[in-house]
Amino acid sequence: VSTTPSASAVQRWALAIHGGASALPKTLSDQDLQQIEGTLRDALETGRRILSVGGSSLDAVQASVRVMENSGVLNAGRGAVLNHEGFAELDAAIMDGKGRRAGAVAALRHVANPIDLARCVMDHGQHVLLVGSGAEQFAIEQGMVPKLASYFVTERRLKELKEAVEATKHPIATSDLAEHSKGTVGAVALDAHGHLAAATSTGGVTNKHWGRVGDSPLIGSGTYAEDGLCAVSATGAGEYFIRYTAASEVCARVKYAGKPIESAACEVINEIQAAGGEGGLIAIDSAGCVSMPYSSRSMIRGQVRSDGHWEVFVESPE
Amino acid sequence: VSTTPSASAVQRWALAIHGGASALPKTLSDQDLQQIEGTLRDALETGRRILSVGGSSLDAVQASVRVMENSGVLNAGRGAVLNHEGFAELDAAIMDGKGRRAGAVAALRHVANPIDLARCVMDHGQHVLLVGSGAEQFAIEQGMVPKLASYFVTERRLKELKEAVEATKHPIATSDLAEHSKGTVGAVALDAHGHLAAATSTGGVTNKHWGRVGDSPLIGSGTYAEDGLCAVSATGAGEYFIRYTAASEVCARVKYAGKPIESAACEVINEIQAAGGEGGLIAIDSAGCVSMPYSSRSMIRGQVRSDGHWEVFVESPE
Repeated sequence: VSTTPSASAVQRWALAIHGGASALPKTLSDQDLQQIEGTLRDALETGRRILSVGGSSLDAVQASVRVMENSGVLNAGRGAVLNHEGFAELDAAIMDGKGRRAGAVAALRHVANPIDLARCVMDHGQHVLLVGSGAEQFAIEQGMVPKLASYFVTERRLKELKEAVEATKHPIATSDLAEHSKGTVGAVALDAHGHLAAATSTGGVTNKHWGRVGDSPLIGSGTYAEDGLCAVSATGAGEYFIRYTAASEVCARVKYAGKPIESAACEVINEIQAAGGEGGLIAIDSAGCVSMPYSSRSMIRGQVRSDGHWEVFVESPE
Repeated sequence: VSTTPSASAVQRWALAIHGGASALPKTLSDQDLQQIEGTLRDALETGRRILSVGGSSLDAVQASVRVMENSGVLNAGRGAVLNHEGFAELDAAIMDGKGRRAGAVAALRHVANPIDLARCVMDHGQHVLLVGSGAEQFAIEQGMVPKLASYFVTERRLKELKEAVEATKHPIATSDLAEHSKGTVGAVALDAHGHLAAATSTGGVTNKHWGRVGDSPLIGSGTYAEDGLCAVSATGAGEYFIRYTAASEVCARVKYAGKPIESAACEVINEIQAAGGEGGLIAIDSAGCVSMPYSSRSMIRGQVRSDGHWEVFVESPE
């Protein structure tokens, strides 16, 4: 497992983001690479502006994820990977560590910013998870304007889908997928009031079966936050992260086994890797300590902290 | 929290089932009551027949749940509650403690036995959770014959929906629902080979928003199994069970805090109740010790064990 050394001092506030635990394809142009790095910087800066003036971690993770959903170059919102039928089918979740409130949506084809709809679900308060056309009807009830399916489709993702379909003729197993055909975006934050929050958004995996839902929108699997403990957003082979309840497992090791966040996060990624699942996660504890372990070749990631530290990692394709 | 004393001796095999943590409506006829009790007996007997001859806990929980889905008198399969639009919209999950494999389905309107489709998803191996029309397309690919929506609708559930809609005019909050308008069925088992399994199936809550998914099909929330630890199936105010990752939380307390299954299960139900969520769960550990705590007025439940013990609880409406 690779990871990034985290701050030793307690932070007043901190924000970590990821843009997926997948190696970038060799065919990616320099312009695309710059755009990915620029998106991460924008996402961090957007969150920083909220947190540095006492804004909530909940608003910060939502705003950061929204920037990544709008970028067109990451696997979320516009530019997400396409399912077997050629549609972007989007999942997202948000969780507020304060009161452990949560909202999530899955299998959306017409909502520009799934993370905003997840927030609506949470704030609306009746349900936690809405899926498919029912979720889209709820989006309309909430005043959101549906997008055409074509809004989400980029040339790069269409090419990836065609290659995947050509290679298999069928919806295929996650393990068979090219590394760059999956990915997720996510954010975790601690705010100056001591509250934690997590948000995750994804298009899942290229060529997935219509209706497949991964770990991202599932509370405790791809997304989890609990004040006083930690907030987690995961990325990778979603089916493994569901079966191993990755996000809540990190918290359980902090809560009951007394592990530091770094050990808890690395152990979970190691165990999932040992079972055959690649991926990574970002986690933050109530002292603002950030852990970003991954077992994949790389993970697009970054963090910004109240001590002024700022970093973005986007490894170039090999 | 109410609970049932469990066996003190280690069991070779054991099976526990629940038919929902909701009080039965006063309007229920004696015939309905007898039918519910008969269904529980059939479900236990079906599982017992598998476990007593060395069959797997996985096959036992699936078979027990299938009996309850077919009954027409519990909130799963035929006879499930109806959503705001008048459709039964069904969720289910199954998990094999051996290898922590899992399969789940949600928002189905045409699949007679959601638990069988969940098992198919698990055995098919590519994905863990399929929802909506994509899941139904997968059912057809697997050779299942779709049912008309009317197959699932019973007079009793139609009446409950009409009353709920009349009272609110809108899809409504779980907390506002009459107690008998929710419920779930589930089973957990230990087999003679030491393997644990869990299965849960539900129609969710009466008058729910189209596309709402509760805790039942979410691994770690309503359903979880891990060999050497425990298997859990939950029922109740699903949104709370999602936010508190109820099923995996029971396991985490056994695994990391060294709690006996009875304390772990009761603590989780207590905490969810303190947060405002009513419900219950059934849990079994690797010694065959069964815990069935609930904070609701009652929980329809039963268990059968290798020592010959057999019990069914169906409290009469007050």
